[in-house]
Amino acid sequence: MHNRKLILSLKDINSNKKGNIAAIFSLSNGYMGIQASDPITGANDVGTLVNGFFEYSPITYGEPAAFYPKNNQTIVSLPSLRKIRLLDENNHSFNFSELKNISLDLSNGQLTEVYEVSNQGGEKIEMTVASAIDQKKLAFYGIKFSFKPISYQGKLVVDKHYKIERKNNDGVGEVEDPRKTRLVKSISKHIISSDDFREVIKIETKESQQSVTIEGYSTSEKMLTKRALKTGFDITYIYKVSEGVKNKGVSIEQNSFDKIKEHSHKFWEDVWNQSEVTVSGNDEINLALHFNIFQLNQATGRDGKTNIAAKGLTGSGYEGHTFWDTEMYMLPYFIYTNPEFARNLLIYRYHTLTFARKRAKELGIKHGALFAWRSINGEETSAYYPASTAAYHINGDIAYAIGKYYEATDDDDFMEKYGFEILLETARFWREFGSWTEKGGKKQFEFLTVTGPDEYTAMVDNNYFTNRMAENNLKLAYTVGLRLAKSNQKVFDRLNSSESELREFHHIADNIYFPMNAQYQINAQDDSFFSKPVWPFNKTPKTKYPLLLHYHPLNIYRYQVNKQADTILADFLFPETITDSQLRREFEYYETITTHDSSLSRSIFSAVAARMGKVNHAYRYFTDTVRLDLTDLQGNTEDGLHLANLGGSWLDVVQGFAGMQVSSQGLLKIIPHLPAEWDSFQIRLAFKKRLLDIVIDKSQTQIVLLSGDPMEIVINQSQQTLTKIIKINN
Amino acid sequence: MHNRKLILSLKDINSNKKGNIAAIFSLSNGYMGIQASDPITGANDVGTLVNGFFEYSPITYGEPAAFYPKNNQTIVSLPSLRKIRLLDENNHSFNFSELKNISLDLSNGQLTEVYEVSNQGGEKIEMTVASAIDQKKLAFYGIKFSFKPISYQGKLVVDKHYKIERKNNDGVGEVEDPRKTRLVKSISKHIISSDDFREVIKIETKESQQSVTIEGYSTSEKMLTKRALKTGFDITYIYKVSEGVKNKGVSIEQNSFDKIKEHSHKFWEDVWNQSEVTVSGNDEINLALHFNIFQLNQATGRDGKTNIAAKGLTGSGYEGHTFWDTEMYMLPYFIYTNPEFARNLLIYRYHTLTFARKRAKELGIKHGALFAWRSINGEETSAYYPASTAAYHINGDIAYAIGKYYEATDDDDFMEKYGFEILLETARFWREFGSWTEKGGKKQFEFLTVTGPDEYTAMVDNNYFTNRMAENNLKLAYTVGLRLAKSNQKVFDRLNSSESELREFHHIADNIYFPMNAQYQINAQDDSFFSKPVWPFNKTPKTKYPLLLHYHPLNIYRYQVNKQADTILADFLFPETITDSQLRREFEYYETITTHDSSLSRSIFSAVAARMGKVNHAYRYFTDTVRLDLTDLQGNTEDGLHLANLGGSWLDVVQGFAGMQVSSQGLLKIIPHLPAEWDSFQIRLAFKKRLLDIVIDKSQTQIVLLSGDPMEIVINQSQQTLTKIIKINN
Repeated sequence: MHNRKLILSLKDINSNKKGNIAAIFSLSNGYMGIQASDPITGANDVGTLVNGFFEYSPITYGEPAAFYPKNNQTIVSLPSLRKIRLLDENNHSFNFSELKNISLDLSNGQLTEVYEVSNQGGEKIEMTVASAIDQKKLAFYGIKFSFKPISYQGKLVVDKHYKIERKNNDGVGEVEDPRKTRLVKSISKHIISSDDFREVIKIETKESQQSVTIEGYSTSEKMLTKRALKTGFDITYIYKVSEGVKNKGVSIEQNSFDKIKEHSHKFWEDVWNQSEVTVSGNDEINLALHFNIFQLNQATGRDGKTNIAAKGLTGSGYEGHTFWDTEMYMLPYFIYTNPEFARNLLIYRYHTLTFARKRAKELGIKHGALFAWRSINGEETSAYYPASTAAYHINGDIAYAIGKYYEATDDDDFMEKYGFEILLETARFWREFGSWTEKGGKKQFEFLTVTGPDEYTAMVDNNYFTNRMAENNLKLAYTVGLRLAKSNQKVFDRLNSSESELREFHHIADNIYFPMNAQYQINAQDDSFFSKPVWPFNKTPKTKYPLLLHYHPLNIYRYQVNKQADTILADFLFPETITDSQLRREFEYYETITTHDSSLSRSIFSAVAARMGKVNHAYRYFTDTVRLDLTDLQGNTEDGLHLANLGGSWLDVVQGFAGMQVSSQGLLKIIPHLPAEWDSFQIRLAFKKRLLDIVIDKSQTQIVLLSGDPMEIVINQSQQTLTKIIKINN
Repeated sequence: MHNRKLILSLKDINSNKKGNIAAIFSLSNGYMGIQASDPITGANDVGTLVNGFFEYSPITYGEPAAFYPKNNQTIVSLPSLRKIRLLDENNHSFNFSELKNISLDLSNGQLTEVYEVSNQGGEKIEMTVASAIDQKKLAFYGIKFSFKPISYQGKLVVDKHYKIERKNNDGVGEVEDPRKTRLVKSISKHIISSDDFREVIKIETKESQQSVTIEGYSTSEKMLTKRALKTGFDITYIYKVSEGVKNKGVSIEQNSFDKIKEHSHKFWEDVWNQSEVTVSGNDEINLALHFNIFQLNQATGRDGKTNIAAKGLTGSGYEGHTFWDTEMYMLPYFIYTNPEFARNLLIYRYHTLTFARKRAKELGIKHGALFAWRSINGEETSAYYPASTAAYHINGDIAYAIGKYYEATDDDDFMEKYGFEILLETARFWREFGSWTEKGGKKQFEFLTVTGPDEYTAMVDNNYFTNRMAENNLKLAYTVGLRLAKSNQKVFDRLNSSESELREFHHIADNIYFPMNAQYQINAQDDSFFSKPVWPFNKTPKTKYPLLLHYHPLNIYRYQVNKQADTILADFLFPETITDSQLRREFEYYETITTHDSSLSRSIFSAVAARMGKVNHAYRYFTDTVRLDLTDLQGNTEDGLHLANLGGSWLDVVQGFAGMQVSSQGLLKIIPHLPAEWDSFQIRLAFKKRLLDIVIDKSQTQIVLLSGDPMEIVINQSQQTLTKIIKINN
């Protein structure tokens, strides 16, 4: 860890909206998430979020049809672990609260807030809140309140008991989700036990039949304490949030706030050691990058049964659902810095295969699997199929990520137990879903009535991105399958596959049709894309963006207009498929018709521009990307951080400015493109059991092998053997 | 009126399900509809339906988007006018009722039912119910109950007062719609006045702010009568259902059951005189045809402000909405038998132009109008845009009907006041909605991301039917506009049109692209239709039809499979656009991939097959069509009759078997194709102020000019002058 400032505080963010602060300064550990909401007023508090803890509610359709998903899944807002009641000696509340400072130390995960709290009479005290989440024993969270007099010195009552609204005799109340997410009314909350130092409550969902127990423990004072303020005093609470068997062996007494902080510190040391990304010459961007990586790590489920929600555990936007965002925007970071996390995220997909097989059948595909477009538990829950179920590319996205993970780790154990089964079932899906047609005397394999990444174009034939992903998926199933067949025939048999099935995949992949636009000599987004007129951009005022909020879908769909990178994303993922000159034409064409109305767009344009050597151009996209939540660029950071975009900023630095790729021979390639605004930047990468440190400055690129065996590496097209250190002039 | 039996009774229908009987034996007059539900039990009673009387309720979307329609519109179930309570001398109800016979006289509109009614003790009386609806003073309905002893002769209490459930103090209750339609909870019902002979209630809708007053009047006995049954007695009631100003000048005392029956009789005499269709040699089909025409007339709004609901006024299926069914399947009957009715149906569309202009703007079209796909008042209310809003052809359908009406009537007054404005606004829509592209070196005009009539294919480019309808629409606006510009420049000016605008329409029409399939040499349903594989019919069990109930839309959309006639419907409407040999290939191709899952399909295949001379083939489709509701072929007649299909059976006889068309010179053409199963058939047609009687038998075709000036007519390709009678050997 270098010596630059790694503390995020109020002055580093552009908007002091309470909701933004709560989301940005969230603490989480992949299992549970706690927003930095005001402990006194609870304003903008979405409560405690537990990864994978959700409730069903029925989806109501304007006009239903066969095999539409029946149920919403909504992440549940559990009671806040931060809420506190303070009373003065007359039993009047300290109701008013003002945040004076907040700082999040990215090197150890400790959050410190200072509030000025006052009662109706205007008497004030200072409340400092120190908190940390356990990054080893994930059920634990610790919070310490320190009270000091400002203009009030009398007795202070501190009450940390839950107030559960009792609506009927059996003590079951309802918790309602806050605004901007679905109202879930079928949650019940019981106090299991309550004494002076400890309170245990249990929350149960009626429809999904999940339950979680929250145990609160005051380490020294009583949960309801009355003390003279005098010069001040502290109270520390530990919380344990247990879902199922997690951490069941560890009691609260075995943990402590100090241990929690220690676990947290150790975790972040390891993270930065593995995945440091440092920019010299721009502290603002350097801090933002660290923040992004910090939150990316915090958001990630680590148990193979949970994933990353679109907003992580920082807010309840998108109802806590996981999308393709994980595989396309976030997994690369983990694959190349923390393969164990990557592995667990992919195992999550493996655990959803049963739902995916069922969904394929519902779509008329007998053999194979179709993963959910949006879901918590893996069951499809999207209510608008033209931009979800039709986005069949999700299958290819997951397969692509498995291929990349395997390429970077050689993890045969993963492939045998989990990966190949996914590759096989998704390949089977493409085989049955696609169809052979004759085009210009040649039999070709096509994928019809699909939606690609660009959600401003729906239900078209032969989306280039989708076809490319399907090709990759089929070829991966072939190559990995053949390898397994030799090394571990048993695995191969268990899945009822055969060499002839694999050869069929390969034959199909070899004959997939890719639409080209003859006029511009570029890949066509789909069969009909270029017969549409270009969106009338010059007649569209700025207030009408994002288009989806201001135009009927049919209005958008009949024009050439992109919400986000689509063909360009394919070019990014498969650089070997396109020549430099075609890429240049393609980038230029699609850039002019892209609105970037999706937060997934700019990072890809940045990375591709950097690779093309258009570094200034890339840098402009990057600066929007890297501080998107800190500046509230999309205006909805209060609903939660844009996790995919956080990952996108890492992609830009590593796969854009450092030009990192893996060659078709499996060699790591670095092609540096240092932005003019930077003196230098440094990245760390894990690749095939090595840890590398790479520093790129204006004059040279230096690569140090921190651990692992010597390896071959390609720098600026020239292959080198890295034994300890390489320095090459740029 | 010929002398064949024209009474429909129980033995003429295949299913005695109470719901079917209630719908089939409905009485209505285009203004209000009264199902033949059991007056004692009220089973399957949807109550009184008033054309255009609806309530709004909010549409809930799984995932909303910009400019989705906000509100449902649901026809309101008003209180039954037939319900009656009978009590024995111990004040016990006669609760049980069995229908013994029912007969509907199609020659005068009188309905007679005989019930055996019993109390809990099993004592029985016979109740005969005679009823009729006024076809002149549309607010009126008369019903006469005749009671006779069977095994009970004691005192009989007859109560015809309404029982309004009083839910709160102000006497406002709720009426809930019955099953299979939306629940409308915002209806209030008040008793305005009630005395021994009369009761007046008022029903109001909260959201749509409509109200209707129902006045019940007992002509001799009190509304609550107690009489000894002895040998029997009768009671007659008159009802007046007034919405707004309708019939406000006529009091109940000025009308009577006899007058109502007289008005009804006179109306049906006129109908049959104008539109007799008689089949000799098959009484069953002859009766069914008469029934269809009877119900078609009953369903039709006559005031220019109401239209025909998909189920007429016989049931609340499809919520009482009007679709393209009116213009494509029902209007031809009125155009060629009762132009005044046709005119009023088209004026209804004119009155919805404000909504249509607004809708066009919502779809991004600044100048022009887009009519609602489904609506009661003209405001779009469909919740699934891929098979509604995307069905832009509704504009062309209405324009087509206006063209056909004008061709058959020369009604310049209509065209100047209403018709041209619709033609102009719809043409403007196509102009702005379509786009110029270059195909094979030629600039062509295309319509993108549309859905044609076939609802098993959605959001495609250049649907052949849609493009053909748009071409016709643009050309009509051009020719009619030019004519108006000469004869009545003022009308032309009022609409801010110009000759150059008209020439632009013509230029566009001349350059519209029509997709062809080169392999089969047939019109292609759309640009991508033939790149899809054919639906796996041989793997689809019969129980899986209709497909829409058993397969996800995306599953259906990616195959070549038709729910209904699409390109074939275009061929039917534009016979001059296709050669005999291409039509033969086209019919054969599309027939094999059509499921006829829509009730709008078979009638078109029948008519086209007849024209092609495949008379036996046509006849098979026709027999399914003509008795579809009497046999409950679709299994849902209880939700209401399939009005478009009723119209379709007339199309089959007149435009199929009689081969009636209008030539491009505006001449009536007859090309007879007598089905082998018939001895002969006779039709009556109104055309350009003439009334014709046409009889086609095995040896000859006879045409008699019943009224109007001599005219030129084409029979079997040979042009003749019809002065009084023509006989030509077949």
